[in-house]
Amino acid sequence: MADEVVLLDVWASMFGMRVRIALAEKGVEYEYKEENLRNKSDLLLQMNPVHKKIPVLIHNGKPICESAIIVQYIDEVWKDKAPILPSDPYERAQARFWVDYIDKKVYDTWRKMWLSEGEEHEAGKKELISIFKLLEETLGDKSFYGGDTFGFLDLGLIPFYTWFYTFETFGNFKMETECPKLMDWVKRCMQKETVSKTLPDEKKVYEHVLGMLKAIRESNH
Amino acid sequence: MADEVVLLDVWASMFGMRVRIALAEKGVEYEYKEENLRNKSDLLLQMNPVHKKIPVLIHNGKPICESAIIVQYIDEVWKDKAPILPSDPYERAQARFWVDYIDKKVYDTWRKMWLSEGEEHEAGKKELISIFKLLEETLGDKSFYGGDTFGFLDLGLIPFYTWFYTFETFGNFKMETECPKLMDWVKRCMQKETVSKTLPDEKKVYEHVLGMLKAIRESNH
Repeated sequence: MADEVVLLDVWASMFGMRVRIALAEKGVEYEYKEENLRNKSDLLLQMNPVHKKIPVLIHNGKPICESAIIVQYIDEVWKDKAPILPSDPYERAQARFWVDYIDKKVYDTWRKMWLSEGEEHEAGKKELISIFKLLEETLGDKSFYGGDTFGFLDLGLIPFYTWFYTFETFGNFKMETECPKLMDWVKRCMQKETVSKTLPDEKKVYEHVLGMLKAIRESNH
Repeated sequence: MADEVVLLDVWASMFGMRVRIALAEKGVEYEYKEENLRNKSDLLLQMNPVHKKIPVLIHNGKPICESAIIVQYIDEVWKDKAPILPSDPYERAQARFWVDYIDKKVYDTWRKMWLSEGEEHEAGKKELISIFKLLEETLGDKSFYGGDTFGFLDLGLIPFYTWFYTFETFGNFKMETECPKLMDWVKRCMQKETVSKTLPDEKKVYEHVLGMLKAIRESNH
């Protein structure tokens, strides 16, 4: 029996992009279903009743939720091709630690900066930059976080690149100035077709975020 | 070379207890170092500079942080005895999902209930009970979350039992009334020596929390 793979996702989600890159790395064919988070489908509510969030991978009818968990699942099921997690237990733990760090820090800090003004905005901006500086320091002189090859942490972080233009525009800073080595890493990742063909254009993400902002402001009036 | 294993921990931490149970399951000997979170050791700050939190496992000089990640590391390194994660990828993903759910929900909801009054306290209490009811529903009719054997989710949840008396006393409810099947599961877990010998007494945890509350109130004056 062929695998039936369905992905419930939103195109601009960095968490969804992780899953799309993982599926591309493994060469898995799947049906993509775009969700509207302001009017969630019955299928999404049924497949992720706990968090009601995308992405959800549905594999032969069974749902897997939370992007970092989905990527590990994909790596374990389609294990014969393009390993994503390192084979060494210590390196696996480190990769998991940093993906968890990204999940705990980046999106919340961005929202704090985005939706505030004055001192709070400046504090959020400073924190967001310090997060990327720490991630740059963690890369060190390696080509990828996975060493010579693109791995779990590379895959967990690269989707945020599509939001850099948005972060920079709302925060009035330049990633190229703040984190030049991290930007070199971005270029190396983007040389991979599985990455460059999956990630949307950063200007399109920015337009999407402007639309979200408009909707938030309208709902506040 | 024998493994050198050190655990930086606080005795009343449910996250630290997870690691202690995992090490007991695997029969790993280790040096336990109690931390004082109001005066963190240089070793803790050096081994977990990002979060500065316990537990930290130091294995042959190298630190691993975040309890769920540490437990997976222990399972991968000492893999010949007492498997913790299920072998099936889908079951692994489900166990990871629910441990992640516990990490996202229980402690924060407890603090919301604990440190508030009136409506907010009642909302926190209701949410805390609903979390445990959902976890009870997830167990269903199984002996353990791992099926017939004690697994990753069992290990991730059982340390919270040592806080139930505290939750009940501050929230004025009874887990036995709210979640009788979950309490039957607790009894089954406590029949395991690796669990019962690791977990501290629930009244001692309560005394500890009263001490924390006193310290919080004094620092607010």
